[in-house]
Parts: sequence; structure tokens; C-alpha cells
Amino acid sequence: MADIATRSTSEPTAPVASESLPSARPVGADSPVVDVEALGRQLLGTWADVRLASRALASRPEMQRIEGLSMKEHRARVFDQLKLLVADGQVHRAFPTSVGGAADNGGNIAGFEELIAADPSLQIKSGVQWGLFGSAVMHLGTEYHHLKYLPGIMSLEIPGVFAMTETGHGSDVASVATTATYDPATHEFVINTPFRGAWKDYLGNAATDGTAAVVFAQLITKNVNHGVHAFYVPIRDENNEFLPGIGGEDDGLKGGLNGIDNGRMHFTNVRIPRTDLLNKYGDVAEDGTYTSPIASPGRRFFTMLGTLVQGRVSLDGSAVIAAKLALKIAITYGSQRRQFTAGSDTNEEVILDYQRHQRRLFPLLATTYAAGFAHEVFLTKFDDVFSGRADSDDDRQDLETIAAALKPLSTWHALATLQEAREACGGAGFLVENRLTSLRADLDVYVTFEGDNNVLLQLVAKRLLTDYSAKFAKTDVGALARFVVTQAADRAYHGTGLRSLAQTVKDFGSTARSVNWLQESASQRELLTARVETMIAEIAAKLRPAPTLPKKAAAALFNSQQNELIEAARAHAELLQWEAFTDALAQAPDAGTKQVLTWLRDLFGFGLIEKHASWFLIHGRLAPQRAQAVTAYIDRLITRLRPHAIDLVDAFGYGPELVRATIASGAEAERQAEARAYYAELRASGKAPADEKVLKTKKR
Amino acid sequence: MADIATRSTSEPTAPVASESLPSARPVGADSPVVDVEALGRQLLGTWADVRLASRALASRPEMQRIEGLSMKEHRARVFDQLKLLVADGQVHRAFPTSVGGAADNGGNIAGFEELIAADPSLQIKSGVQWGLFGSAVMHLGTEYHHLKYLPGIMSLEIPGVFAMTETGHGSDVASVATTATYDPATHEFVINTPFRGAWKDYLGNAATDGTAAVVFAQLITKNVNHGVHAFYVPIRDENNEFLPGIGGEDDGLKGGLNGIDNGRMHFTNVRIPRTDLLNKYGDVAEDGTYTSPIASPGRRFFTMLGTLVQGRVSLDGSAVIAAKLALKIAITYGSQRRQFTAGSDTNEEVILDYQRHQRRLFPLLATTYAAGFAHEVFLTKFDDVFSGRADSDDDRQDLETIAAALKPLSTWHALATLQEAREACGGAGFLVENRLTSLRADLDVYVTFEGDNNVLLQLVAKRLLTDYSAKFAKTDVGALARFVVTQAADRAYHGTGLRSLAQTVKDFGSTARSVNWLQESASQRELLTARVETMIAEIAAKLRPAPTLPKKAAAALFNSQQNELIEAARAHAELLQWEAFTDALAQAPDAGTKQVLTWLRDLFGFGLIEKHASWFLIHGRLAPQRAQAVTAYIDRLITRLRPHAIDLVDAFGYGPELVRATIASGAEAERQAEARAYYAELRASGKAPADEKVLKTKKR
Repeated sequence: MADIATRSTSEPTAPVASESLPSARPVGADSPVVDVEALGRQLLGTWADVRLASRALASRPEMQRIEGLSMKEHRARVFDQLKLLVADGQVHRAFPTSVGGAADNGGNIAGFEELIAADPSLQIKSGVQWGLFGSAVMHLGTEYHHLKYLPGIMSLEIPGVFAMTETGHGSDVASVATTATYDPATHEFVINTPFRGAWKDYLGNAATDGTAAVVFAQLITKNVNHGVHAFYVPIRDENNEFLPGIGGEDDGLKGGLNGIDNGRMHFTNVRIPRTDLLNKYGDVAEDGTYTSPIASPGRRFFTMLGTLVQGRVSLDGSAVIAAKLALKIAITYGSQRRQFTAGSDTNEEVILDYQRHQRRLFPLLATTYAAGFAHEVFLTKFDDVFSGRADSDDDRQDLETIAAALKPLSTWHALATLQEAREACGGAGFLVENRLTSLRADLDVYVTFEGDNNVLLQLVAKRLLTDYSAKFAKTDVGALARFVVTQAADRAYHGTGLRSLAQTVKDFGSTARSVNWLQESASQRELLTARVETMIAEIAAKLRPAPTLPKKAAAALFNSQQNELIEAARAHAELLQWEAFTDALAQAPDAGTKQVLTWLRDLFGFGLIEKHASWFLIHGRLAPQRAQAVTAYIDRLITRLRPHAIDLVDAFGYGPELVRATIASGAEAERQAEARAYYAELRASGKAPADEKVLKTKKR
Repeated sequence: MADIATRSTSEPTAPVASESLPSARPVGADSPVVDVEALGRQLLGTWADVRLASRALASRPEMQRIEGLSMKEHRARVFDQLKLLVADGQVHRAFPTSVGGAADNGGNIAGFEELIAADPSLQIKSGVQWGLFGSAVMHLGTEYHHLKYLPGIMSLEIPGVFAMTETGHGSDVASVATTATYDPATHEFVINTPFRGAWKDYLGNAATDGTAAVVFAQLITKNVNHGVHAFYVPIRDENNEFLPGIGGEDDGLKGGLNGIDNGRMHFTNVRIPRTDLLNKYGDVAEDGTYTSPIASPGRRFFTMLGTLVQGRVSLDGSAVIAAKLALKIAITYGSQRRQFTAGSDTNEEVILDYQRHQRRLFPLLATTYAAGFAHEVFLTKFDDVFSGRADSDDDRQDLETIAAALKPLSTWHALATLQEAREACGGAGFLVENRLTSLRADLDVYVTFEGDNNVLLQLVAKRLLTDYSAKFAKTDVGALARFVVTQAADRAYHGTGLRSLAQTVKDFGSTARSVNWLQESASQRELLTARVETMIAEIAAKLRPAPTLPKKAAAALFNSQQNELIEAARAHAELLQWEAFTDALAQAPDAGTKQVLTWLRDLFGFGLIEKHASWFLIHGRLAPQRAQAVTAYIDRLITRLRPHAIDLVDAFGYGPELVRATIASGAEAERQAEARAYYAELRASGKAPADEKVLKTKKR
């Protein structure tokens, strides 16, 4: 179906003068220059070499997605690609040295993230095998399980299933209904699925490939339920048939990620040896006695789940990469595609010179940088914890809070960016050959798996509330205010809990100092921090009666604040991103690059302030005039960033072998050059037909 | 891959008390009741019978999409379905009585829209054949063409291509580069593609099925270019091979709509008879003399394109239907799915009782109603114009402005709704069997075809600016203000141009009257109208110097306001939706239904005010306290609407035969009942294992 739209009769839509801009490089002698290569090195971060090696692997055609395969063909291709990962040694990085691994947690995730450029199905299927199934054996099992199972898992001899989610329980893992009841007579656990809602569901490797599973079930011994534990369970025989007592079905086609064989499974009195309980955090003796190094069932559960945080780490990083690819495609195309004349009679304008186009794409570019820098901090923290370098309870809790804060924002951001990029490329963006629609389809589920984004943000909010309560429960408001003021000075990124505001002075400043004041990092920080702090304080005040209420009424009161809680968590996560971006400015390779990055950081910060302007206005933190100045300054920043847009996406370091989008290949620039040459020649020949419009104008 | 997320240790997330709510019906004796059937009849609108007949057709399995087909199979199936449409007589509705049609413009579109429930590919492919290709012959051709071509087009004997868009020109139709040069020696037009960018592209029916095309090309005769005209061009022979001089290629896989064979075509000196110029608005005599009933080339062009507005009409209506299906699925599932306990120890809560879930879905429900009522007004206007009942220049311009305003909002809304619904259904939402991902993939391109949404909104903004300039160009500000005040009273929906504000009094009212004041339709109208009016006035003031500037500088000035212009157009379109919803309240079947619809309209209006709160605050139209009251009142409205949510989606009238989503089939309710019965029985048996947590609590 064709586009029907119309050129305006009256004033044409026009860009800022741009004919002197060839395509990429900055104009003007005093304009800063981005050192693309050096900035690229900064973006590669701590695990630069691993990322480059993984990109090289993702550049190999045999690792890449072929579009249009049937589900069956796609699954087969991805399974074969896993074998190539094994051959390449990629998968050894995560595992302990006792089984020949490198015990490199951060590097493992960094390498894994980059696979998304080859095919998200490949990435997630490898994540199922080694990041979930293998990790569960590693982190929840003990030496016995490591030696017995990890070699086969690493070599893909045992393709495995991570059987946690049930049809009836996704985000509420503690409530899964599958049971594992200890039978002291035979020294076995009996795994059982009590009803249809307790079928394990959405499990990668379950539909066809998996031969074993880590099954999460309520551990029952001596008629006491000790909560959810993980069990190693063989599921298929050498003919790939389900073992006795096990059944299942294929989840079938999905909105994306169809290279992965997701499926459902159920268990009818399936018996496994006592020793196949993954017993690091809870064990059952032969006589059925339960023991655990962690006395509290609640803390035990969270500790077990906490060891699996890497899923969220890697989704956060992968989402950032998807956004980078989208912007590389849309901004490259936008700088070559021409449409509508405006400031000239003959030259059409490059669409990236239109203000709206810049307004659509550049804030997403700023957010992508912010999310990328935040991810680097997050990944480093993860590596610190899992290497044992900084592995206190507080560290683990901080890590989980960062994970629950950043993964939602980056995965939603990836979807928004892929969609805006697709629309910004028009009909061409809808063609699969230009990759945006497929990436978007695959990334869709990232926002609900490994923890539904809304549920995760709620966890963050509860942490913020807990921090708040711990500090202020017994103080009066005056003490609170003093505390807030004194605490503000030395807060740094690594403190992931509740931010405190630098000052509570309301903003009735003059317009004159508006922009200068807001350009200061300290001012942006003050506004963003104040928002989180105040939101939490307001919610806490509203929830104050809860402990005195009957359970049902307390629950209703809490529910009445749920939306606001999630918004507060989002504000907190935005602040984390902003802080990471601000910290990264200090690492910029040179003054020119730093200047451009600072504009980009300002665009991110101002974008947040603009988005939440009504909050700042209602709370008297921004005067109306200054709020207006924010929007005006964003318009100026966008114009300033225009000459650097190509540099900023080139610094991501994804070449044509990874981008693989026809419209970003230079084909559009060639077409434009051909068309312009044709018309130039026609005009020069003197044989061009006259234009009826022009003739009529002349007659008048 | 499984979800990993965690139940909170501290305060659980809790809903408003809801155990007494079975699922659908309102609680409390004084709660209003929705008459679902009567509301359903209201929603069916003017062409109720046609819609019901079309739904019956869409309910037939042979008309419905089969998921997982290869592109080739899907294309073949949809082509066969077109033949069923012919057999059913569906396609005759639009065409003139002279060739056996019913000349029922509104009914034709209404029936066409409902086909989306069967398969959007079927809908759009039939739109290509009869809505674009056939319509172009009908509206741009004359009796000669009608009699010669329409019968074959109606019977599908001639599958056809609407060859307007080129690779190099999508939204800027006036700049297409294909030429049709008249050769007086042979009385033929010579169609030519001068360069690669001028290939026709994204054309439905072009890749395999089309045997003829309406080709849009620059008409050149006597060495004068008279602008874009349409030509009837045979393209394939009886063996389905391209005719001499014609070449092309397949666009291949797309992000969706893969039942349609989109492709590219180019022409090398293809000769067609002079009489195959579709000559209603421009003709060439044998000697090459050009004549037209419309002297102005610009007006002629817009008149020609204007006859094709029905594409936008039907996309607007189809998008609303897609949103309805999405909400039917997500709200039905949300009212059956249970997750997390809160106000009880044993009962999990229905997820639709969580505030966040309501906040995610109910505003989308309100917008869907608004968009649906606005579409009915739009479709009626379309029918008035095309039936000739009200077909002045002003009517046509109004119709095009409504089209350019509503189509962007409804198509973006459909994508947002499908996505939120998909996320609200978690992993189940990602399964193709639950339809949300496929519908979203298909609907994606609706936001850029038939006019890119951003380009369309810009057209609306220009119309608003033109209206503004016409009225106020020569008045001073005082006169302007008086005009505004006097004009406000009797504005009604059918005046689609610039709204005027009812009063300019700033809002510093007391909090006490906040909600009451805002609940008045007049207050909501005042706020929304004032925003459009003021935005346009501010932009006009900034653009005032433009006429005195050099062309390039004027273009740059205009570009600096582009983003704001588009936002103003969006505000205008939102106001049109709000007015349509408000007008529809008067048609509500009874007091109870009207009360609930009024809450829903308030939710829509308050939602707009909340979304744009910073604007209202900056412009002194809302006091901070009142802005806060808006959010609080939205929370209250959502709670009030909760008991009616199922009724409101049931009134859409889409039964299981059209919804076809497993999760909305009652399967979830069955699973929940089974699980609850299992646990109830276990508790009653006295054999339930004790919970370690509970035991530990008791010990303390």
C-alpha cells in the first residue's frame, strides 16, 4: 500500500540551513570535534577486548540471523550456532576454574550482550543454556553438581531447561505450585505438578532440545514446606522423548525470538535422587532433616534468587546495544535521505535537518548514552560482587536494586527507540531487510521477562521506602529537613539507595539566570534528587497509618499508592542514569569530545526535567519562566548536536557487518546523488520541461 | 526463558479490596449499571448492519489468518480471501451504480474496517485493490474508464497496483520523479523512470498479483510539466510476466502484513494510449493541448489527492478496532488472572484490582472510546461529502483536516494499546496464539502509510495557522482578545478549524472547588481549547517576521517551530476526540450507562489535562493545587470504573469468534478455579504441609 501525503500549499516545512553540511562533520572553526575513535574506546568500557572479540564472532555470517526462516528452521539454526559458541570457547568464561572455566563474570556478560547484533534468539538461547540453566547449577549447586554436570552443560552435551516460571505464576516465584516431596524410604525427591496452572511454562529449550532441567519447586520434607528450591531433573531420553512422568507441549510461535524452542512441562511423581537437590542454600539429610546456612526462609529465598541476577544485568546491556543499532540506522539514513524543499528551489533537505526529526531522535540518543554509561557501572558492580571483591550483604542488595531499576528503563527505552527509528525511516523502516522491525519484535519480551518491569520498579520503590523509614521513622519533620541538607553533599553513584536533596529552597529565580543555572550539573542533580526524595517522603506520609490498620485496609491503602511508587522508582532509576552519564564526562578523551558529551548529558538532564516539569512546577522547584526556558534550551541543544550526530552513532563501533541494514549502507546516499545529478544535468541541458506553476506565476 | 522476579519481603503489593467482586458486574446497590447491549448498539453507529454483516464474514474461519504461514502461503491465502469478498458482494458497496455498485461510501468503509478482526493483511490487500486502485479509477477517471475497467476491478479479474509512492518520495507526492510524456505523433503517453530513486515502491499487488496499475507521474506535454496525474497502465501479461519496458522486484518480508505482496516497479518508455490518462481533473487533447477544470496546478493536485482521503478514514476506524480487541483481551484476562496475595493469607488478587494495572489500561480504554466516537463523526462527514450531500470546498477541506488530525492519533494509540495490553498479559501476551503481537506487527505501518503521522499533523497545524492568520492578521491584540471571548460560545464539533477559548481568566481558584469545577464539561473544554488557541497564537507570533526574511532564513525560522506546531496539531486532534466523546454522552441509552460513560469521558479529559499539566501551569491556566487534584481525581475515577471495566469492553461486541485469543477464552479462569479448589481441599484435608515461615513465626 502506498503512502499518500501531500506537500503543503502554503509555507513549506523547512530545516535550519544545512546545505553547507555534507553529512557528518561539524561546521565552523570554533565548533568542537568529537574524537570518534577515542570516544568509541570509552564506550567499550572495562571489557573492551571481550566485546570486540564477541562482535567479531557476531560478524560471522554463520552466527547471524537469516530472516524468513520457518520457526523450525530458525530453531535448528540457532541450536547449531550454540555449538559454534562452544567451539569458540565463549561459554567457558563464566564457569569456575575447577571445571576449566575462567571465572570471569563481568567479561562473560559483556561478551554475551554483544551477541544480540547477530540474532537476539542466539543470545537468549545461549542465555538459557549457560546463563540460567548452567548458572543455577553453578550458583545453587555445590562441588558435586559442578563436577558432575557443568562439563556437559558447558559442552552442550546436556542442553538444559531453567524451569522456574509456571503458567499460573510468573513474577511471583515464591508461589510456584510444583512440589518436591522427600521420600526417606528411597532417599528420593518426588516432583509433582498438582494442577494445570502449575505447569512450567515459557521455558527455553523445553519444546524440543532440553534433556535436563533445573526445576524450581516447593521443598517438602517431614510435612514441612521449606519454600522454593532448585532440583536437577533429567527430562528426555537418548531418543529425545520425555522420560516417564514428564509431559509437555510447545509454546508455539511467539511475537519474536522464534529461534528458541519455548515450551511447557509437567511432572507426575517424577523421582530424582536426594543428591540432585541443588543444595548450596538448603539440604535434606537421608533421614529427611532439613538444614540451611540461612535460617530465615525469606532471606534464603532472596539469596537464592539473587545469585541469578546476571539475567537482568545482561538484558540491560543488550537493550542498550539494540538502541545503539537502531539509532545508528535511523541517524545514518536521516543524514542521507532528502525530502521536501524549503530554503531552496531545487535542493531537497536532508530529513535529519528538520527540527522534528532531531527532536524525535536526539533525546533517544542522549538516553542511550546515559543507559550505556549506567550499564557499565552496573556491570562493574556485578563483577565486584560475583568475583567476591565486594560481596557484602549490602553490596548484593545494592546490586539487586540497581538491576531492578535499570533493566526496566533500558528495555522500555530499547523498544521506544526501535519504534521511533522504524517510523523515522518510513516505509523503508518497515522492511525486514532494514532490521528494525525484527529487532523490535525480539526485544519486546525483554520488558516482561527476568522480572516484569512494573514488578521490578515496585521492588525498587520498596527499597527506597525502607531506606526512608529506617532513617526517619523516629524523627520529626525539622530533624528530617536538617538531615536531608547535611547528607546531600557527598552522595555518590555507588550509594544506590535513596538520594537526598541538596536544598529545599524553592525556585523563583529570574529568567535571566535560568539557563546558566540549569546547565550546572549541581542544579540538575538537585532537581532530580529532590524529586525522588520528595516523592518517597510523600508516599511514606500517606502510608503512615498502614501498620495500625486491619490487613485488608492496609493492603488497600498500599494499593492506592502503587502507581506513584512505581513513578518514584522510575525517577530514581533516571537519576542513576544521569549520575552515570555525569561521571562519565570526566573520562572523556579530550575537550572537544567532552563538550559534545556535555551537551548530550544536558539534553538528557533537561529532557527529564521537561518530562516531569509539572511535578517541579507543582512542588515549587521550578518557576514557570524557568520551565519554559528548559524547552527552549532543549531546542538549542538539539541544533548544537546536529553536526555531531553521525559521530555520536559512529562511536558505538557497529560497522556494516553488524548493522546489516540496507538503508544504512549508503544506498540512499547513492540514490540521492544519482537523482540530483539527473536533475542538474537536465537543467543544464536547457531541455527541461517548464513547470506549469512557474509559467502561471510569470503570467501574473 | 523464564521470568525471575521476586515477592517482596516487606509490605506486599495489594489491591483495593475486591474479593467480593466476582468479575464483571458492579457492586453496591447505588452503583450505576451499564446496559451492555444498548451501549453496544450505540457504538455500532450509523452503519450498524454493515458492521455486523462484516463481522459475521470476519468470523468465518476461511477469512481468518492462520499464524505461522510462510510469506508465500500467507499471500496465497489472502488473495483467495479477496475472491471470497467478491463472492460475498462486499466490494460492490463503494462503486457507482453505473457499474452495478451501491454508491454507499460510508457503509463501504465501515464494512472494510471490520475486516481487520479477520486479518489486517486481508483488510489492507482489499484496500489496495478496491480502496486505492479501484478508487483512483473511479475518482480520477471518467465514465470511459469506469465502464472499461471497474467491472474487472470489482470482480478481481484485474488485480491492480496503486503506484504512487517512489523509493525516493513517500510523503512528498508532488515530487515524484516518474514522467508521462505525451507523444502527439502516436497519441500515446510514454511512462519513464529516470533513476533508481524514482522506482515505485512499497506497492501492494506489485510483487506478484497485479496485472495493471494506476501510475502517478508528472504529466509533460508540449514541454510543460503539468504536475502529478494518474495513468492506467497494464503491467503483466497473461503468464503473469511483466510487460515490455516494465521491471520490478519484491519488497520481501516486512515487519507485518506479510499477506500482501508489496513490491517495486520501474518503467522504461512504456507507451499507453492517450485515453488511459485518468482525465477527470486534467486532460490532453490529441494535439497535446492540456486542459483542466481547475486552473491552479496546486489546487488541482490537492483536489486529486483529496478524492483518495478514504484511506485515512478507514485506517482511523481500523486502528480503533484493533485497540478494542487489545483491551477486550487484556481486561478480560486481567479480571481472571490472579497474582500475589495481599489483603488475605490464601486468596491471590485479580491483577485488574491492582492500581497500576488499572492505571495502565483504563486510560487507554477511555481513549479508545474517544477515538471511536470521533471516528463515527469523521465517517459521517466523509459520507456526507462523497455522497454529495455536503460537498463544498470547505467541507472537503474540513474532511481532510479531520483525517490528518485523527488518523495519526488513532494509529499511534492502537500501537500503544496493543503494546500495553501485551505487557499487561506478561509472557502469555507474547505468545502468538494470544494475537496481540501479530496485531501490533501488522498495525505498525499504519502510522506511516497513507501519510506519515508527523507529516499529517503538520498539515493540520498549517491549517490552524492559516485560520488564525485569516482572522487576526490585521487586528491588534485587544481586538484579538475580544474576538476570542465572543466567538467561544457556539463552537461545535463540525467546525474543525481552530478552536477559540471560552475565557482567558487565569485559574487561581481554591482547592475546594477544584474537582467540581473540572468535572464540568465546560471547564474541560475551556482548558483544552485554550491550549490549542494559545499554542497557535504563540507560534504565529514567533513566525510573524517570516514573510520579510530571505527564503532560507524564513525556512529556518519555520523549522525552529516545527516541533511545537506538531504538538499544537496533536492538541487540536485531542480536542476533536474529546468533543466527540462529550457529544456522544447525550446519546447514551440510559442514566446508568451515561454515568459510567461520563466517568470514562472525565478520565479521558483529565488524562489530557494531566499529560499537559506543565503547559497549563506555565500558562497560568491551572493552579498547582488544582493540577494535583487532577491526578487524585484520576485515581478516584479509575476505582469507580473498575466494576464496569468488563462491561465496557464487552460492549465493543467482539465475541470469541473474532477475539480468538486463548487467554481471553476463559481458560485462565478455569485454571484459577482449579488451583483454588486444589488448595482449599488440601487445607480441608488437614494433610497440608506446614510452612517453615509460619512455624518460625510461631516459635518466636
